[in-house]
Amino acid sequence: MTRPLLFALPGNEAISRTLAGELEGEIGLLEIRHFPDEETYLRFGTDVAGRSVVLVCALDRPDAKFLKLAFAAATARELGARCVGLVAPYLAYMRQDKRFLPGEAVTSTVFARLLSTEIDWLTTVDPHLHRYPALDAIYTTPTRVAHAAPLLAGWIKSNLARPLLIGPDVESEQWVAAVADIVGGPYRILRKERRGDHEVEISVPDLLLFSERVPVLVDDIVSSGRTMIETARHLREQHLPPVVCVAVHALLSDQSYRSLKDIASVVVTTNSVPHSSNAIDLTPVIAQAVRELI
Amino acid sequence: MTRPLLFALPGNEAISRTLAGELEGEIGLLEIRHFPDEETYLRFGTDVAGRSVVLVCALDRPDAKFLKLAFAAATARELGARCVGLVAPYLAYMRQDKRFLPGEAVTSTVFARLLSTEIDWLTTVDPHLHRYPALDAIYTTPTRVAHAAPLLAGWIKSNLARPLLIGPDVESEQWVAAVADIVGGPYRILRKERRGDHEVEISVPDLLLFSERVPVLVDDIVSSGRTMIETARHLREQHLPPVVCVAVHALLSDQSYRSLKDIASVVVTTNSVPHSSNAIDLTPVIAQAVRELI
Repeated sequence: MTRPLLFALPGNEAISRTLAGELEGEIGLLEIRHFPDEETYLRFGTDVAGRSVVLVCALDRPDAKFLKLAFAAATARELGARCVGLVAPYLAYMRQDKRFLPGEAVTSTVFARLLSTEIDWLTTVDPHLHRYPALDAIYTTPTRVAHAAPLLAGWIKSNLARPLLIGPDVESEQWVAAVADIVGGPYRILRKERRGDHEVEISVPDLLLFSERVPVLVDDIVSSGRTMIETARHLREQHLPPVVCVAVHALLSDQSYRSLKDIASVVVTTNSVPHSSNAIDLTPVIAQAVRELI
Repeated sequence: MTRPLLFALPGNEAISRTLAGELEGEIGLLEIRHFPDEETYLRFGTDVAGRSVVLVCALDRPDAKFLKLAFAAATARELGARCVGLVAPYLAYMRQDKRFLPGEAVTSTVFARLLSTEIDWLTTVDPHLHRYPALDAIYTTPTRVAHAAPLLAGWIKSNLARPLLIGPDVESEQWVAAVADIVGGPYRILRKERRGDHEVEISVPDLLLFSERVPVLVDDIVSSGRTMIETARHLREQHLPPVVCVAVHALLSDQSYRSLKDIASVVVTTNSVPHSSNAIDLTPVIAQAVRELI
């Protein structure tokens, strides 16, 4: 593996530094600012010619980020970079994976096509695969997926004596089962019914058998937080101890985070999206995936 | 020409309606909203199969708009639209047309390539062509450029008895000369020196010969407004009457607009970018350009 040259898109400086250390790479200088008319100005301050370039950019709130990323990738290539890869610890537009209603945009396929055109490879962590079997169903660029489960399990084992892992819905089973397997403890999956973008109803099975255990809600993405909040409320009504919330990707607004902290004893996420709840560093698994690609 | 089906991207509803009238087209329903995680949801509420689709989207503040536009264009095509064109009364990323410093992104070429891939044709008004001779130097999709000069000249002739047209810098000469030619009056071009993105210094020739005329500053884009404000100040110091400001594209922030109104007697723009200074309707010239394409 050649010595990679990493560039942090705005907000990704911390994880880029630890990743550069892990990969024995360098951090390059990338200047991004806005003109008065709000167009982006972008300049590489480190020579990329002949280098293996790694752009680091979490793709939460993706709409304002895509052009910056495309400008960076295209410019690195124009300036002679040997290859231009993307580490997106959180990958956007995985959830609209089907035309549910006539006329809807299947944004996952359009976004994957656009991103695939701009980069030579992609590494991400636990993309929200539901109807797609794997990323290469929609991404034409080579991809490697890193998994947070071992790191989530490590945190749970270090911090909680007798956990009961709980997945808030059937889609979460893939993450929860993987984590429970490493933790070596039991897990249960709840049933969720979504009513629009914001309203969620939870059906909770009888968990009283596990009343001496700490309920740990595990999911890939925590966004509005409604699913976890509703679930935590139902568990409290059944006189279970306060829940611990563990998620890979923190897409929480400030308000959602406050509501979640009001009902959970702890909220823990990985650093895939920079957030004050970050407590689990993904660098080791991301670095491994990057090593397989460059 | 077949009966086109127009869709307004958010904020472009007014000009889309007048344009649909002018083109004897229909306005279709396009729903765009955001999920709690800030990803875009997009749905066509009108069947596009077999239709000539026209998306209408001013590209000021472009970064957050590009993906929505790409989703709309790709989805219309997937749903069987016969062709998908874009009316962008203001076209973004025309100003960084050269690598001025090593490592800089030439955003104009990257943006042109991305946009060209997504649409079948493009109509815009007076793009900021400086080093490029024409749009097809960077756009591979067919384009037609509409010119605002006749409409600007029409407004000036209707509203001002004895105008002296003034271009604030050499780049503006192309617009000012075209307007002055139709107005049938004199014009002068000032010299501007740019110091960074925000600071501008103006060199004003002796305009006292024209002290009985109303100075009319004409430019294609008014953004920070600094150029026009500085020019207006210099003219006031020479005891010329308060200036009238006429621009094609209003990229003004609220603060810049207030500062400009403090020193100018009138600020007038076209409706290429929705703004409270809009007083000149571009629909006739845009419609003519669209007719040549579909």
